Amino acid sequence: MPTVELMQAAVHRYLRALNESDLEAIVALYADDAVVEDPVGSEPRRGLAAIRSFYARSLAFQLDVALEGQVRVAGREAAFAFRVSFVHEGRATTIRPIDLFAFDAAGRVLSMRAFFGTGNIEVA
Amino acid sequence: MPTVELMQAAVHRYLRALNESDLEAIVALYADDAVVEDPVGSEPRRGLAAIRSFYARSLAFQLDVALEGQVRVAGREAAFAFRVSFVHEGRATTIRPIDLFAFDAAGRVLSMRAFFGTGNIEVA
Repeated sequence: MPTVELMQAAVHRYLRALNESDLEAIVALYADDAVVEDPVGSEPRRGLAAIRSFYARSLAFQLDVALEGQVRVAGREAAFAFRVSFVHEGRATTIRPIDLFAFDAAGRVLSMRAFFGTGNIEVA
Repeated sequence: MPTVELMQAAVHRYLRALNESDLEAIVALYADDAVVEDPVGSEPRRGLAAIRSFYARSLAFQLDVALEGQVRVAGREAAFAFRVSFVHEGRATTIRPIDLFAFDAAGRVLSMRAFFGTGNIEVA
């Protein structure tokens, strides 16, 4: 069972890696058979190859991300709110998701689900 | 499919009902076969009778709750952060959960999961 500290550290590592456009550090957080559903309701990306190409596309935007509020760890899951800002088609854009990580016994992320909708996207 | 507006309204109705200790308004949000896992990792309460008695016990504390940040609606789910303050054994206590509602086609809450751990509980 991964510890609370390990799960919190994974969240902070994830946000730092997004800020630093560190694709390898992001992929390293995930289990081989992980599933990423971002946003929730879209077709899930299954496995590291699909996850890698998903993040490679996202990092092309030079993301600026920051945690908003506390990381909530419960059972083998962690939920956290954050903002992610970037420029899209010349316009400053901010999205405020709540992400949910579920961990495997080894402390890798087995499932990531990103909750946000049009109401959480702000375009300047 | 429930609309985004309906799902957002359900979240606001839920928080208002918690503030007003309105047990019937809370139970009315749930589907007959709903499941409440609060906190995540605890034994889920299944069905309206179990859900009713869970909230009846919670409302005995006279909760003061407030949304923190935006409601995130994605697919047929809504995630939201909030704080809940109450007095427990004479001490002012605040918990900051992230809750996740999953809705059925009729717009009732089919599943509620509350993410928080000891790191999200503040005792004065």
